Amino acid sequence: MSVTHPRGFRASGVVAGLKASGTADLALVVNDGPDHHAAAVFTSNRVEAAPVTWSRTVVADGRADAVVLNSGGANACTGAPGFQDTHTTAEHVAGLLDVAAGDVVVCSTGLIGERLAMDKLLPGVDAAASALAADAGRAAAEAIMTTDTVPKLAVADRDGWSVGGMAKGAGMLAPALATMLVVVTTDAVVAPDRLDAVLREATRLTFDRIDSDGCQSTNDTVLLLASGASGVEADEAALTEAVTAVCAELARGLIADAEGAHHDIAIEVVSAASEDDALEVARSVARNNLFKCAVFGGDPNWGRVLAAVGTTAAAFDPASLDVSMNGVQVCRAGGVGDDRGLVDLSQREVRVLVDLHAGDAAATVWTNDLTHDYVHENSAYST
Amino acid sequence: MSVTHPRGFRASGVVAGLKASGTADLALVVNDGPDHHAAAVFTSNRVEAAPVTWSRTVVADGRADAVVLNSGGANACTGAPGFQDTHTTAEHVAGLLDVAAGDVVVCSTGLIGERLAMDKLLPGVDAAASALAADAGRAAAEAIMTTDTVPKLAVADRDGWSVGGMAKGAGMLAPALATMLVVVTTDAVVAPDRLDAVLREATRLTFDRIDSDGCQSTNDTVLLLASGASGVEADEAALTEAVTAVCAELARGLIADAEGAHHDIAIEVVSAASEDDALEVARSVARNNLFKCAVFGGDPNWGRVLAAVGTTAAAFDPASLDVSMNGVQVCRAGGVGDDRGLVDLSQREVRVLVDLHAGDAAATVWTNDLTHDYVHENSAYST
Repeated sequence: MSVTHPRGFRASGVVAGLKASGTADLALVVNDGPDHHAAAVFTSNRVEAAPVTWSRTVVADGRADAVVLNSGGANACTGAPGFQDTHTTAEHVAGLLDVAAGDVVVCSTGLIGERLAMDKLLPGVDAAASALAADAGRAAAEAIMTTDTVPKLAVADRDGWSVGGMAKGAGMLAPALATMLVVVTTDAVVAPDRLDAVLREATRLTFDRIDSDGCQSTNDTVLLLASGASGVEADEAALTEAVTAVCAELARGLIADAEGAHHDIAIEVVSAASEDDALEVARSVARNNLFKCAVFGGDPNWGRVLAAVGTTAAAFDPASLDVSMNGVQVCRAGGVGDDRGLVDLSQREVRVLVDLHAGDAAATVWTNDLTHDYVHENSAYST
Repeated sequence: MSVTHPRGFRASGVVAGLKASGTADLALVVNDGPDHHAAAVFTSNRVEAAPVTWSRTVVADGRADAVVLNSGGANACTGAPGFQDTHTTAEHVAGLLDVAAGDVVVCSTGLIGERLAMDKLLPGVDAAASALAADAGRAAAEAIMTTDTVPKLAVADRDGWSVGGMAKGAGMLAPALATMLVVVTTDAVVAPDRLDAVLREATRLTFDRIDSDGCQSTNDTVLLLASGASGVEADEAALTEAVTAVCAELARGLIADAEGAHHDIAIEVVSAASEDDALEVARSVARNNLFKCAVFGGDPNWGRVLAAVGTTAAAFDPASLDVSMNGVQVCRAGGVGDDRGLVDLSQREVRVLVDLHAGDAAATVWTNDLTHDYVHENSAYST
């Protein structure tokens, strides 16, 4: 039930008519309290969509009562009229729910550079408000899908409280953040001034470590809402653990459903001098098109991995690098290791292990292979 | 005639048997003087191939008498035995030409992580030495081709002296440098201590501004040899201009023949606060897979351009960005501009103009689209 699994939340997902496919494209999530604490993390892309600009302001005071999300249009690069559309949407939601517009988060996803069809969106909001239900988390998750093939849901039950979440995002997944809209809810009682820290720690280790295609979106939003409806206080560490678990499951789901991907690839970097070094190396490999094509082709071309590692500023000696692919150490001490023909890349999940022999830090970044289907899906996205 | 167009040079290209295709795979270029000045620029990849390590030392004193180049194997990630192979090759060339091994540059290109077949390479060097001729520049250019479909040659005639060059490189083209082997020759009389500056300025504006797929090679080498055989002194500015012209023509040829590409795309960034800003923005767009797929699909999805610009640290106001594609201003002041349907992407060459409205600096980076053919060629490279 995703976002409606914790107590204190209602949700809905309806067809507003924004998507040509005629499938559900508008979702509403309402926090009925008693608490209305909120925290959010947004794209670091400087070209940010109108709903991102709006929602930054909404959550600045740590409170949100509802979030309205639409697929079928990103409302990005739409100028002042686009921002007005977001504002109008929030006002409309606020009127229906009897809350302040300044407490309504707005999220949009879809094509950049086109205005939203407000004549369809606003009646859709009416329908979504009427459909609100305490068991409609899945319907909401389905309504935010774009090229996703499955809705992404996750829950974590803890001692008297729980966390639930939904996510959408199937292409343009890059760190900080992936192209995604994510709503995570909890009924734990939590100090409002700690919610932001909880969310940032959770996203740092999850959504910030998936990188499907190196491209960063204009609309990424991860929202955490706390209702306090369980009446049970959760300490910060426990809440962080549970929110991280839900975010990790959602992030893994995004990679597993990435546009056109045939493989999910974990780039695990170990024995790095620092976590930053490990991340830089993992991201460099994750963004190397030649490596990603090779995995698609079932070709354990480990030279592509070394060439990618070599472009980083991380501490390592090129003559000490070890690389394993699915357990076969194809590169040993910077040179030829075991027979590359022993590597089996037929499974969906691929594991690449890079040992820098430079320290004790480690990090893993998940990415996808580069396939004909990826090129196909993205060569005619707006047409 | 490429490298043999200037006086004082001989070259050859022969079949050593390193390439399974049976085509020419070994080239030799000899500087007969009277001068033997040399300068070189190498890959900045920290995982560098054995011939790069060797050749850095060779040119450190500003002198080189010959360069031997092989396709059919990169001799990268081959450890100490691989370095010994490079050394042996240089010694063999030196013996045949009666020069010092320490004045023989070695270049290799091909698959990473495999030893060279020295039992074929050394007899190939014998054949290449026997075939040396003052009109064999084209044969040398053909022998260094890998997935190139045409040899890349260029010449520039100036007042009593000339510059000639050859290049290979068809994939893995990224700045500083692209995957390429380039030899440029001149018969101008030039102060040896200025040759390095001439070459660095020329590559900065040419090879460093092509980026086919964001991937950086382990073997890139650009070599400039000066014979002084014209007897005519060239001032530094004139020589820089001519070498830059030859490098620009070769660089454009590399993009035009990039693996699997259907389009050559010029990303021109203007009104930037600095040249570094312009370059950062141009490279970010050039490396955006979603944008590159869209161009392949004939889809003028300018939102992809803005999303890429937004990931940079360059000075600009998102609300002031203008973007034109092939002359149609699809984005005006960060929002919707002219009808994207007016953009014609049917021609091979595509021009994207990004106006940052932040200053007077500009830079252009050339890249390619991301196609099914690129994925195909690189999904089974080593198999």
